Amino acid sequence: MSDITPLENLGEFGLIRRIQQTVTLRQPSTRLGIGDDAAILAPEAGHDLVVSTDLLVEGVHFDLTFCPLKHVGYKAVAVNVSDIAAMNAVPTQIVVGLAIGSRYSVEAIDELYEGMRLACEAYNVDLVGGDTTASRGGLTISITAMGQVPSGQAVRRSGARPNDLLCVTGDLGGAFLGLQVLEREKAAWTADPDMQPELEKYPYVLQRQLRPEARMDVIHELRDLGVVPTSMIDVSDGLASEVLHLCQQSGTGARVFSENLPAANPMLEVANEFNLDPIMCMLNGGEDYELLFTIPLTDHDKIKNHPDITIIGHITEKSDGVNLVTKQGQPIPLKAQGWQHF
Amino acid sequence: MSDITPLENLGEFGLIRRIQQTVTLRQPSTRLGIGDDAAILAPEAGHDLVVSTDLLVEGVHFDLTFCPLKHVGYKAVAVNVSDIAAMNAVPTQIVVGLAIGSRYSVEAIDELYEGMRLACEAYNVDLVGGDTTASRGGLTISITAMGQVPSGQAVRRSGARPNDLLCVTGDLGGAFLGLQVLEREKAAWTADPDMQPELEKYPYVLQRQLRPEARMDVIHELRDLGVVPTSMIDVSDGLASEVLHLCQQSGTGARVFSENLPAANPMLEVANEFNLDPIMCMLNGGEDYELLFTIPLTDHDKIKNHPDITIIGHITEKSDGVNLVTKQGQPIPLKAQGWQHF
Repeated sequence: MSDITPLENLGEFGLIRRIQQTVTLRQPSTRLGIGDDAAILAPEAGHDLVVSTDLLVEGVHFDLTFCPLKHVGYKAVAVNVSDIAAMNAVPTQIVVGLAIGSRYSVEAIDELYEGMRLACEAYNVDLVGGDTTASRGGLTISITAMGQVPSGQAVRRSGARPNDLLCVTGDLGGAFLGLQVLEREKAAWTADPDMQPELEKYPYVLQRQLRPEARMDVIHELRDLGVVPTSMIDVSDGLASEVLHLCQQSGTGARVFSENLPAANPMLEVANEFNLDPIMCMLNGGEDYELLFTIPLTDHDKIKNHPDITIIGHITEKSDGVNLVTKQGQPIPLKAQGWQHF
Repeated sequence: MSDITPLENLGEFGLIRRIQQTVTLRQPSTRLGIGDDAAILAPEAGHDLVVSTDLLVEGVHFDLTFCPLKHVGYKAVAVNVSDIAAMNAVPTQIVVGLAIGSRYSVEAIDELYEGMRLACEAYNVDLVGGDTTASRGGLTISITAMGQVPSGQAVRRSGARPNDLLCVTGDLGGAFLGLQVLEREKAAWTADPDMQPELEKYPYVLQRQLRPEARMDVIHELRDLGVVPTSMIDVSDGLASEVLHLCQQSGTGARVFSENLPAANPMLEVANEFNLDPIMCMLNGGEDYELLFTIPLTDHDKIKNHPDITIIGHITEKSDGVNLVTKQGQPIPLKAQGWQHF
């Protein structure tokens, strides 16, 4: 049985010192990390800074019944890095706010930070500051991520133009189906606590849900290919919702071809098992954290052989609307059915 | 009776648009604010960036029984700006994360943002991004503030040297006594809901508690006077705790003279009414958000006539310890009795 040390044994300052000791600083722009009133950064000349913030709330964004705290920590950093990637920027620093419920032990918080530490290593990001406090409820994690991009090269949602190719990285729908598996097994386990959850059969979709990765690899590859997307967004709420955001902010329409949507075999198998339409899972399942972006038609040759980029459609005039084109060639207006928090 | 609109009528994207419409951008370094995956900033050349984050949790940091949401919003921004000030920096942007319990209406969130908007105006700060989500409990506000300072001029906690003068802005203990008044009146009102709380008698200490100000005024005045503090921290946990932080990180001791501690008359009156030692209130009462800093002895003439800066002692060798010197000249080791969240 593992140790359980109450947080009050450590106190807030003890906890800060404990976190500080495990942090490695890698970024040349970090002048001062944890331990003062603020971190000090010296941004690289000729670069713009991008800043994004995300909250993960226990019972809303994660469920500790089936999600280990280490994965929660990793995911909390990854989803913030994903927002930085979606600006065509490279992440540099994060600050972390934690509101911690009274049932959390020092060991639990260590596990959470271990996940964040691993993600910082994977994305080459410095954890430079934070705030920790008690909460009256569960755990709330607030991360603000900063990144840098050569001046003027940040990619917004608003730059898509008619005839641009609409591209997406990786595959879609897996994270949503991973959540379906977890919720089914939780319901079964709630009904019969002696039952063993069957999770070994679903490694791919579970990994997509529990431990998503930000697509920094693709950002670096696009730079190497000399491709600057005209617009970009990360797929957190579901593809349909994100296509609508791009089109709304760019003042365009779009055609998305259902046959082109990137499906992974394990996703198709789980969709089949759950009797769910895989197209709907790919369009409306959230949390894949892939990148959706547009490139000029003239860049087609540069990306056409990239194994991890799929052209799913193209941008049109606004008057054409935003449509899903079915296998039969039928255009259907695309609707967002993404996350509704409230 | 005021209107009450459920948040689900608006949805997350509707709420973001509503916030976006009320935001004014003032900072030349803000290239893109709310509405994309991240904000885009172009930091001024020759400057370092400072970054700080703070959480305010309902039931821990604020109590809506006696604290209007507009004040909560103002305070949430002010306490973050105070951290930026404590680095000798000028605040430029904030991002705001909100986890909102189900009992909050659109009008309540409007009131909260109205307070944040007023603070942004007061401190000349741009609200450039955020995240809003549901929570299973009360309201959690997470703010990350950024600021700028000429390269290399950020002031850390670690730069105090023996013989430096120890200075504090404004006066101390008021915020703590404001909280005592509010808690007494709340207890009386809980016992008898027909009773009218008596708050008119205590405008000063209540304002100190409910609507503190970050001392950006002093930061600008020190610049005008040509004074760069050797170390600085803001008084959020209580003076004693902050003096100990400065000394620990600087590797020094200090002597604080109890007779020199800055007391406001309304604070003394309320301390007397509550039968509390005003010295203890000034030493251990938190949330005054004044600045504690050290300056070289040679800068004494520059600040000696400043109406809002009090010299409360001086820095000593580490081996002398950190002591409070009583009216009778007796040194007593200083102990932190600040906030304990856990």
